[in-house]
Amino acid sequence: MEFENKFSKVTKSMKSNIIRELLKDAANPNIISFGGGVPDPETFPRNELAEISLKVLKDEYKFTLQYATTEGDNELKKQYIKLLEKHEHIDWLNYDNMLITVGSQQALHLISMVLLDEESYCAVGKPVYLGAANAFKQSFPKFLEIPIKEDGMDLEFFEAKLKELKNKHEIEKLKFVYVVPNFQNPTGVTMSLEKRKKLSELSKEYNFLIVEDDPYGYLRFEGEKLPNIYSMNPERTLLLNTFSKILSPGLRIGIIIGPKELIRQFTIAKQSADLCCPSLTQRIAARYLENHDIIKELEPSLKLYKSKKDTMLEALKVEFENTSKVSWTKPEGGLFIWLTFDESTNTMEMFEIARKKGVLYVPGESFYVNEIEKNHMRLSFCLPSHDEIKEGIRRLRSVVEDYKKVK
Amino acid sequence: MEFENKFSKVTKSMKSNIIRELLKDAANPNIISFGGGVPDPETFPRNELAEISLKVLKDEYKFTLQYATTEGDNELKKQYIKLLEKHEHIDWLNYDNMLITVGSQQALHLISMVLLDEESYCAVGKPVYLGAANAFKQSFPKFLEIPIKEDGMDLEFFEAKLKELKNKHEIEKLKFVYVVPNFQNPTGVTMSLEKRKKLSELSKEYNFLIVEDDPYGYLRFEGEKLPNIYSMNPERTLLLNTFSKILSPGLRIGIIIGPKELIRQFTIAKQSADLCCPSLTQRIAARYLENHDIIKELEPSLKLYKSKKDTMLEALKVEFENTSKVSWTKPEGGLFIWLTFDESTNTMEMFEIARKKGVLYVPGESFYVNEIEKNHMRLSFCLPSHDEIKEGIRRLRSVVEDYKKVK
Repeated sequence: MEFENKFSKVTKSMKSNIIRELLKDAANPNIISFGGGVPDPETFPRNELAEISLKVLKDEYKFTLQYATTEGDNELKKQYIKLLEKHEHIDWLNYDNMLITVGSQQALHLISMVLLDEESYCAVGKPVYLGAANAFKQSFPKFLEIPIKEDGMDLEFFEAKLKELKNKHEIEKLKFVYVVPNFQNPTGVTMSLEKRKKLSELSKEYNFLIVEDDPYGYLRFEGEKLPNIYSMNPERTLLLNTFSKILSPGLRIGIIIGPKELIRQFTIAKQSADLCCPSLTQRIAARYLENHDIIKELEPSLKLYKSKKDTMLEALKVEFENTSKVSWTKPEGGLFIWLTFDESTNTMEMFEIARKKGVLYVPGESFYVNEIEKNHMRLSFCLPSHDEIKEGIRRLRSVVEDYKKVK
Repeated sequence: MEFENKFSKVTKSMKSNIIRELLKDAANPNIISFGGGVPDPETFPRNELAEISLKVLKDEYKFTLQYATTEGDNELKKQYIKLLEKHEHIDWLNYDNMLITVGSQQALHLISMVLLDEESYCAVGKPVYLGAANAFKQSFPKFLEIPIKEDGMDLEFFEAKLKELKNKHEIEKLKFVYVVPNFQNPTGVTMSLEKRKKLSELSKEYNFLIVEDDPYGYLRFEGEKLPNIYSMNPERTLLLNTFSKILSPGLRIGIIIGPKELIRQFTIAKQSADLCCPSLTQRIAARYLENHDIIKELEPSLKLYKSKKDTMLEALKVEFENTSKVSWTKPEGGLFIWLTFDESTNTMEMFEIARKKGVLYVPGESFYVNEIEKNHMRLSFCLPSHDEIKEGIRRLRSVVEDYKKVK
């Protein structure tokens, strides 16, 4: 049967996540991959999670093996509320301010379903996290691309766009701005306190929502922790958190925190999207949080990640400092460093050479929605060993040299 | 902040699942609920699942605590392929014919995303499972409602509709027909072998897909097992299965089986919907299937459900046989019996009296998309005890009597 003419408009517009295609070889031992943003499985508290899982399946089977509510496990919400009180000084949350999701990706999907239409605008970073862009694209909104500077989004640029929309009487069609304020994916950039306050003010002045995606906030190795935007502006902010980077991605648990009128709508959307999250994984996380300060327990992982980040920055300096044509970000946390080459460089073209030389990265062009920039690449430092990082950056240099020759 | 004007068209059209609202009191011990379609938690193999969970978290943590692929766990697919070979004589499946989903609800959501647009048609039963209708409605298709007879969909009615579409040159806009061939939700009706063959022929003649949702197929207590439509027509059929009724709903595992070109598109859609299912729950199910014939293990549950179904049919006979104005289906499996009252009866109006008298059911009107019928109700027999079933049906009779008086 010929299926083409049965597909929806969305399907015809959807492309497979290029990153997954490019990183197919990542498992090959001869290849050093700076590609994926996955945590090191050795950092997961597997034995304790195993004991908890045994216990909740034996003692709480009437919950853990049965359907859950769409809203999510209140035991998990209770523990997460405690965590936010302790670490974020957020002390006003009720269960109906939270929805448990299948990772942050589902939160982004629900936000797209509930808030976006073809005539809507949504503002995103330039570059922007590709999983978010893909979720939003399903609703075919118009994107405002806001350049990412060293201290976060260019808010002067954004404000000019807001004024334009207002003059066109289209400002109400701007549903939200999407930001990853801490160690943004892909750039590793953190939004300054001033900009967080300014963005919060803009959202009130121009009446739009802020979608604050914060998967990496607790992965700060150095520098001063900044308050999240939600804590300054709970009226207009949706805070997205996930356990994928701080406990385990295998549980697939994300949380949307926000005004209850919005959470209610996301809950109704989730009813038809997948009815509910698995009860088992939610209760395992709840019982783990009950007995652990997962943020404190991150400290060894953070030491590990920081040292790997330093190793990568040092290696970049060694290999590339004599060429003025390459620059890179210096993140204080998270998983990623963002390289920028001269504008004649096309990192997607370069990728084949890199594959042959046994080093993988993510070409930057995947992270743009309107105006594609081709001279960037994203490097992740969390998984390879220190020696692999040094060797990988060495290989990267010769990849760049060969690329320049053939070009 | 006023959120109304920020909501999408989908959101404005979405209503909360009324069933969940109506059944809020189901937990109240003084109330007998024939409402939900949830299995009895005592039937779950909790101790073995607990041991398996302990083991896969300790020994397979690099998989179970890490991100999974969007396609799903191949270990689970391998075991499910064996199950289908043994119990359905389906022996041609590869991994790329299958996608693991968060329950069947996500499968229905992905089908809506990938296949339906506003100008599309999709054919559904009259009545139809409400979770499916809600998933499809998000894409605003035109619905063809096909009456459900004692032996399944009225295919003469359907064929007349197909001819109409063909004459209007709109037949290509018909994307699929949605059927629950075994013990349909809500009616409990099973589609005859003749009709399965006929529907399969129609799908070839008029070039549409068949979405065969089969959550209850293995819950047959009596009568002869019928081959599923997928086995007759794998070219044009999507078979939806779930572990919710045969192992445990708490794992939230569903499977879409079909042509690999379609599975590929569902996989891309799932990438942006939630990236992947939890690795842990998938691997637990895989290891359980490896060592168990879950279909054989269902036998005690089936005995239990059959005896409860017989008790309910007997009670209905005792309480209602002297009134010609009530009729009901006699399912050979599944979870539901469907009652039909005279057309002056409105089971939603009647619901308040039922609540007061301590018996809950699902008013039939929830299961229609175009022409609403108000004189039906769905009763589930799987959870209450035999005595509760008898008492509940006794209460139901006095509910009906009181309703007639006030009316």
